[in-house]
Order: sequence, then structure tokens, then C-alpha cells
Amino acid sequence: MFIPCVRPGIAHTARQLRHALQCRSFAEQSGGSESTRVALVQGASRGLGLEFVKQLLDKPDHRVVATCRNPDGAAELQELQGRSSGRLDIVQLDCTDEGSIAEAASQVSGSHRHLDLLLNVAGILHIPGKMSPETALSRVTADSLLTNFQINAMGPILVSKRFASLLAKASEGSSASRDRPAVIANLSARVGSISDNSLGGWYSYRASKTAQNQLSKCMAIEFARRKQNIAVVMLHPGTVDTDLSEPFQKNVKPEKLFAKERAVKQLLDIIEGVTMETNGSYLAWDGQSIPF
Amino acid sequence: MFIPCVRPGIAHTARQLRHALQCRSFAEQSGGSESTRVALVQGASRGLGLEFVKQLLDKPDHRVVATCRNPDGAAELQELQGRSSGRLDIVQLDCTDEGSIAEAASQVSGSHRHLDLLLNVAGILHIPGKMSPETALSRVTADSLLTNFQINAMGPILVSKRFASLLAKASEGSSASRDRPAVIANLSARVGSISDNSLGGWYSYRASKTAQNQLSKCMAIEFARRKQNIAVVMLHPGTVDTDLSEPFQKNVKPEKLFAKERAVKQLLDIIEGVTMETNGSYLAWDGQSIPF
Repeated sequence: MFIPCVRPGIAHTARQLRHALQCRSFAEQSGGSESTRVALVQGASRGLGLEFVKQLLDKPDHRVVATCRNPDGAAELQELQGRSSGRLDIVQLDCTDEGSIAEAASQVSGSHRHLDLLLNVAGILHIPGKMSPETALSRVTADSLLTNFQINAMGPILVSKRFASLLAKASEGSSASRDRPAVIANLSARVGSISDNSLGGWYSYRASKTAQNQLSKCMAIEFARRKQNIAVVMLHPGTVDTDLSEPFQKNVKPEKLFAKERAVKQLLDIIEGVTMETNGSYLAWDGQSIPF
Repeated sequence: MFIPCVRPGIAHTARQLRHALQCRSFAEQSGGSESTRVALVQGASRGLGLEFVKQLLDKPDHRVVATCRNPDGAAELQELQGRSSGRLDIVQLDCTDEGSIAEAASQVSGSHRHLDLLLNVAGILHIPGKMSPETALSRVTADSLLTNFQINAMGPILVSKRFASLLAKASEGSSASRDRPAVIANLSARVGSISDNSLGGWYSYRASKTAQNQLSKCMAIEFARRKQNIAVVMLHPGTVDTDLSEPFQKNVKPEKLFAKERAVKQLLDIIEGVTMETNGSYLAWDGQSIPF
């Protein structure tokens, strides 16, 4: 059953009405088939997120929801949408704003009966001219600690909270099983490991990814206890040639600096293989487990 | 040399003037002896913090700086001060406010030439009627994540940043060596361990302590690299009978619920034994190492 996201008698914004038209087109295309896999990429307007959208659309049985802070400015996503035969939906979502996350979840619930994959990709490491990863304790500031925590740690957990019921519905239908659960894949980073930290520095970014790992582990335990067939994994993509890593690539050996296309393919291969047995794992791009 | 914290020609608040009188009395007592050990307890108005102040004052060679948000309301600290023969200094410090931390550091630098021990004790787990540790993902909120992070993770790192130069001065004099470095002891908790997390829940509190552990590890690495003879340890006190744990004691076996006096004695014994070899360790009340 297709539940429209525009309801009679309720006032709607122009954005909601535009979204409703997209959803109708989407639902007409997907035809409500139980075998359709639905993936949501949070932070999809550029970098790894945009590449995830592209590669997921290459899978014919996939529908994709791409979220970003400013859909009107996301030219590449809009272009992809034009070529997607109605398989790509673009939804506004600011992961630092719980109200925005709740509205996005409500919109997506109106057009999709389940979700098979939630990819939390939005992340921050630096803001040109304003914020850099700290090379010394003396450079740590409240602003930097908070900004990193809000986007890299709070974002994924609050988005997961609002989309958990849609992910649980994947296992109520036929699309998820213990061997192929719905998946929450959070983009973490090896520098979030405390055990593996031998260089120090990057205080705010490291702490935010470490906190994200703990929050992800808590979710993994809760989903398993509730027998919800939702697996959570934390993924280290390696150093990828994106805006995020651009100022910090000079000490990375060329063979260790991945193109976006390669990095995303590697991560999607890992996600494909996730089962409830690997629920709660912290995995590098090559599938190796990283100690916390 | 005693550097007065009241300077000619500069306007001072009533609090600063009151503090200056305390400092003068303190400096007259301590006489600037190099063998005097100075400990600062951040979050000292009650619970474990207050007990740390009491037990540190029991050591005749120790001077203690007790910080709290509201010294005027800290009746027990004031009473201790009256009996301390000038060995206890009370300083206003709100660990969620970098300006307040900076002002406290400036005050303490005016009355103490070095610091041997910084104990970050202030912590939050619940606010009666307002905030409880989450029993489910659906109860996680932005407010709770932020409040826990600001007090439990940001507090210790921002306080450490501002007092690091005073701690470094301990090793410039005769009071610190590689075998007995200046120490930053951050009150962590076993539930901050990701590896050890098998129950889930308590999302915000766990993540804040996990982030604190990562920030502490970063500091430990930086101090070692700079050969500063400051060791950082993260301490799990066990479940202690304080306001913080009071609502959560019902499943704790009586022999595992420590009185404040016992808990603080155990932790001070550990702190006494810290060397640069144990710098960066995450230790339980019995001295056992906890995996991250």
C-alpha cells in the first residue's frame, strides 16, 4: 500500500508538495514490490555520499533516498535524479537538527514501507579558514569539540533513532533475514580507535568517531536483544580522495589514497556480507576488524 | 616567587579580592617549599570530589585547590577550609564554560607555582525529573547527548588544557620525575569501554566517557612526545554510594557498592603509583587495566 505524504486538510510547505510529487512518481515506479531494496544515504550531496548514491543506483533492484542539508543546491544529486527513472528520492535532512531528522523520517515513511540500508555518511574534519584538526592540546576548543561531536557522533545516532522503525519493517516483510538483515552502516574512521591511537592529535575528530563507535555498539546490542534483524557496522573507508581529506593527503602513499569509486565499492562489498553475526563490528575497507 | 593574583591598577571583582586574600594566606603557609605537593580537584563540592579534598588534606605535605561551580553554596568545602590551616583554596570553575576555566587557571597560577595532580571529578549521569540514562534508542535525545558530552568529556579536556602549563612546571622543579610525574586523573567509568559493553543502554553517558577516554589517550601521547613528565590516567571508581549512582544501586551487590571513603582511598593509592610507564592507562579501582 502506498501511503501518500500529502494528507487532506493539512497545510504543506512548497518543499513538502514537491517531495510528494517525487514520492508518487517513485511509488508508481517501484510498484510496491517486496523484493525492492531501499537504501538511504545520509549526507549524499558530495564526496563518498554522492558516490554511494551512484553505485546503489547501478543496482537495478535498488531504490535510493539521498538526504542532504540543501537539496536545492545539490546539482549533482538533481542530475542523478533526472536519469534515475524515478528510483532516486532527494530529501532535506540536517543531521544536527532533530526536528529536521524527524520531518525527513516522516516523509520517507510516507513513500517507503521499509528500509534495508541506512548509510550515515555526513562527517566533518575541518572547515577551511575556521576549524582544523588539532595538532596540540593547546589548540583544542569547545567549538571544535562540539561541532565534531554533533555531526560525526550525534548525527548518526539521532538519524538511526528516527529511521529504526522503517529498518525493522524490512524484517517483517521478506526482504530481511538473519543472514541478510537490514543494515545501519556508520562511516567511522580508524583514528576513532583508542587502542590503535599511537600518534595523538586530532582530538575533536578522534573523540567524535570514538563516541560514534560506542553509540553504534549500544544500538547493535539493543537490536540483537529485541531480535529486530537490524545489524550495525562501523566502517573505516581508508583515506579517500575527497574534500574531507584533501588538506591531509601529503603523507599518504599513493597506493593508500583511494579514489571515491574504489572506496565505495569496497564498502558496499562489506555491507553486502553483513549478517547478525557481524552486528556491532568495526571494520576497515579490507574487511579486517579494528580493535576499539 | 609568589605572584599575587591581585595586580595594581586593575579592576577586580569581590570574588577575586576574596580569593586573593585566601591565596596570600595560602602562600604564607606553604612558604613556597619545593616539596609541597599541590592537587586540584575539579568538581569538589560534593560526592567523590569532596571526599578527594578531605583525604588529600589528610596528607600533611599537600595543598589542595578545590573547584566548583558555586563556591558560595559549597558549605562543606567552606567548613573544610576553616579547618585547613590555609592549605585549602576554593576557586569558582564551571567546566562547561571555557571562560570560567581560563579565569580559574589564571587565579591558580597566581597563587601556585606548580601543580602535581589534577583530578577531573565533575560528572553527570542523570538530572532528577529531567534526564535519565537511556534504556532504549528511542529515548536518546540531542539534549542528553550534549549535556553528558559537555560535562563528562569536554570538561576534563578543556580543564587539562588550561592547567597543563602548571602541571609541566612540577617537572621543572624537583617535585616530579619520570618515576613520579605530575598526574592528570580523569574520572572515567567501566561503561565507557566499548569492548566491555555487553548490556547496551546508557547511550549518552557511555559515549561521553568513551570520548573522554580517547581525549585522555591523545593527551597522554602528546605529553610523552613532548617529554613533559605529565601522566594521564582514566579511572573507574566502581559503583560508589553517591548522588550520581543513587537511583541505579538496586542491582549492585552490597559488597560491590563502595562507600565514598573506600573508593577515594583506592583511587588515591592508584594515583600514588602512576609513572610515565602507566601514562595513558584506563584502570579500575583494583588497579586492573580495562580494555578500551
